[in-house]
Amino acid sequence: MQNAVILINTDKGQVKAVAERLAEVEGISEVYSTCGRYDLVAIARTRDFESLAELVTGRLDRVSGIRDTETLNAMQVHSRHDLETMFSLGW
Amino acid sequence: MQNAVILINTDKGQVKAVAERLAEVEGISEVYSTCGRYDLVAIARTRDFESLAELVTGRLDRVSGIRDTETLNAMQVHSRHDLETMFSLGW
Amino acid sequence: MQNAVILINTDKGQVKAVAERLAEVEGISEVYSTCGRYDLVAIARTRDFESLAELVTGRLDRVSGIRDTETLNAMQVHSRHDLETMFSLGW
Amino acid sequence: MQNAVILINTDKGQVKAVAERLAEVEGISEVYSTCGRYDLVAIARTRDFESLAELVTGRLDRVSGIRDTETLNAMQVHSRHDLETMFSLGW
Amino acid sequence: MQNAVILINTDKGQVKAVAERLAEVEGISEVYSTCGRYDLVAIARTRDFESLAELVTGRLDRVSGIRDTETLNAMQVHSRHDLETMFSLGW
Amino acid sequence: MQNAVILINTDKGQVKAVAERLAEVEGISEVYSTCGRYDLVAIARTRDFESLAELVTGRLDRVSGIRDTETLNAMQVHSRHDLETMFSLGW
Amino acid sequence: MQNAVILINTDKGQVKAVAERLAEVEGISEVYSTCGRYDLVAIARTRDFESLAELVTGRLDRVSGIRDTETLNAMQVHSRHDLETMFSLGW
Amino acid sequence: MQNAVILINTDKGQVKAVAERLAEVEGISEVYSTCGRYDLVAIARTRDFESLAELVTGRLDRVSGIRDTETLNAMQVHSRHDLETMFSLGW
Amino acid sequence: MQNAVILINTDKGQVKAVAERLAEVEGISEVYSTCGRYDLVAIARTRDFESLAELVTGRLDRVSGIRDTETLNAMQVHSRHDLETMFSLGW
Amino acid sequence: MQNAVILINTDKGQVKAVAERLAEVEGISEVYSTCGRYDLVAIARTRDFESLAELVTGRLDRVSGIRDTETLNAMQVHSRHDLETMFSLGW
Repeated sequence: MQNAVILINTDKGQVKAVAERLAEVEGISEVYSTCGRYDLVAIARTRDFESLAELVTGRLDRVSGIRDTETLNAMQVHSRHDLETMFSLGW
Repeated sequence: MQNAVILINTDKGQVKAVAERLAEVEGISEVYSTCGRYDLVAIARTRDFESLAELVTGRLDRVSGIRDTETLNAMQVHSRHDLETMFSLGW
Repeated sequence: MQNAVILINTDKGQVKAVAERLAEVEGISEVYSTCGRYDLVAIARTRDFESLAELVTGRLDRVSGIRDTETLNAMQVHSRHDLETMFSLGW
Repeated sequence: MQNAVILINTDKGQVKAVAERLAEVEGISEVYSTCGRYDLVAIARTRDFESLAELVTGRLDRVSGIRDTETLNAMQVHSRHDLETMFSLGW
Repeated sequence: MQNAVILINTDKGQVKAVAERLAEVEGISEVYSTCGRYDLVAIARTRDFESLAELVTGRLDRVSGIRDTETLNAMQVHSRHDLETMFSLGW
Repeated sequence: MQNAVILINTDKGQVKAVAERLAEVEGISEVYSTCGRYDLVAIARTRDFESLAELVTGRLDRVSGIRDTETLNAMQVHSRHDLETMFSLGW
Repeated sequence: MQNAVILINTDKGQVKAVAERLAEVEGISEVYSTCGRYDLVAIARTRDFESLAELVTGRLDRVSGIRDTETLNAMQVHSRHDLETMFSLGW
Repeated sequence: MQNAVILINTDKGQVKAVAERLAEVEGISEVYSTCGRYDLVAIARTRDFESLAELVTGRLDRVSGIRDTETLNAMQVHSRHDLETMFSLGW
Repeated sequence: MQNAVILINTDKGQVKAVAERLAEVEGISEVYSTCGRYDLVAIARTRDFESLAELVTGRLDRVSGIRDTETLNAMQVHSRHDLETMFSLGW
Repeated sequence: MQNAVILINTDKGQVKAVAERLAEVEGISEVYSTCGRYDLVAIARTRDFESLAELVTGRLDRVSGIRDTETLNAMQVHSRHDLETMFSLGW
């Protein structure tokens, strides 16, 4: 499983609508509306690296209402949870 | 459940060691070593808001090797997964 | 009681109008027009965390004349005043 | 009454200690430990502008454990609360 | 007397026109066109703090051709000149 | 007369001491301790451009307790006051 | 051979299209769509410095869909590969 | 002779055209198209300080296709060349 | 093959030495000393994503003389060259 | 002839000394102490691109008292002066 943390700012008045649109996008596991410098943080969890690339350079780039994104691609994961099993079961 | 995304930079030569230390901290669910402007992104998932506050202003602030943190506290969550059940089962 | 400090920049010529609109928004306790990098600072004081989330991602995002906001959510409060009593009495 | 919002970053491992020290400083009404780019936000409420100036350029500059401060001095206040009465009664 | 230093950037092609407009605004004592990151620096000198607040949040915000302002409000003045007398005589 | 606005940050705990030292420096007309991103703003007023250059690259660079300076050199002045006369009389 | 690394941000929804357009531009050897603060990184490899200058100030500046570029011109190359031979053979 | 270094960004697709327009402006001695964060760097060399001020706040502000300029005014010059003679002869 | 572009700043006086050290690191294909905001740009080309992760969070983090790195991980490659064959032959 | 504009910040109290040291360095044609965000701007004029690379990554990196440099390498020159002849005659 390939994970990425995506920091997002939306157009004015679009925070909730973009969050709902993103949560529908294949490969996006969670969308958090956050306090601080970013409106939203999305967590992408895809089968492999190619799927992540397609998500970020394709589907994500076409969601309307997004002003800026910065993708932080995970290189290694440290967790007491078996994330791979948990999120596969969930799919 | 209260979620937060924590952007972290570490002291030089400390990326792996800090990732491992953080993964042991109560309330930290996942630690990702990431490409881009931040060395690590940690996801905190706590029972309620008070536990998150104790984690961020207390335990996290005492982990050695951390140079800077920026906590993005989640105000709302949008997900097709039942995160609360998934991560409680994992505890 | 949940507190948050919201740093705000407004559209040109809108500082006073936005300050007055914000002061009417439920959950906004005080609005300061400030010198420095921000036009306005609003203090939100809500009953609980969910109310704050609704304020920031909903009502605040719809106030016209706002260009940018950055919400600094309070995790702990240190004060010689009994803020909870003072601001509840005031409501 | 003169109000100011003070954005503060502390030395590593000092968030709680600085928050407690600040809450003791005459003229500081509230100290919030916050998520986002700043460790603490303090609200100063002083009798007049001269007292605020003494607080910021004197007492505040001598509190140990503070790395950086940025003072946002309030020029006008918009509030449904009678802040002046509330905080005077509290003194 | 209350002093403030106001850092200003103007719309393209408007440096001279804005400087001349600002110099006419009541409470603005001097306008400098400057090299560096800012197009103009204005010095405000008003009778008291309330007059400064009205200038910055009102008259200044309505001057056309201004893109951005950052007001640095003076808390204390150190000078071998008797600025108060000098600038009052000048009025 | 050549004017310049100098934005200054000082070492921790040094705001007042640096302000007093600067006010003694030949060519510095006024020193303001300010709210916002800078600790101090100094106004230099010298006989001509060469004197300003000596002040900034020489005397100012040797004042202890200064961490950073940014000099905004005035290219043109717009004022209803006869600054040249006022500040010469004052010398 | 003259090398340069070009950091690029594109207009919204244009990442893939710009990447494909750039890959066709004479002198552009590789285009990477990247995670982090930049949408694309292009590597230019030209016969000499004049060709690079023409590419950057001419052909590149006319590609549609590009919002911002920052060219990092290589002054020296350290590599175990014989890049000059490899990329000439490829032409 | 008064020198200044002017850092310039142009509108998209305008690098070459602005460079050529600037090279025609009286008082601009050289225009370099540069790699890095700025599109162009212009060197102004004028008879005295007043001429430089007129150039920067007047003629330069009216050149079309310029998005942003930052003027770094020279206070002192260190050179083994007799720049004053060289550039006067060249005029 | 997995590619990444790594933006690097070195300690003072260490540009050449770090460039030479980096060129020896397994997985680093090319190191460019560059003009602009970064001292060096390294291109990593590894067999797969796991090897890249080990390089960035392990070997790279231990190279002495490096002050800051920012890794731009390639998600897709557009090139008229068959980079995979070219760089495998070179190994 | 290859030109480059080098933006420089020096250690505290070192502006004049660094300017004098730089003016002695082979390939540095002029050093300006400037107002604004940079302490010094140096102009490098070398016979060819290789000499510039040696200057920037070698001799310049060893000058003591320099804190930060950013080199803006000229790709094209527009000037009514015959800079190549003028500066060669001067050598």
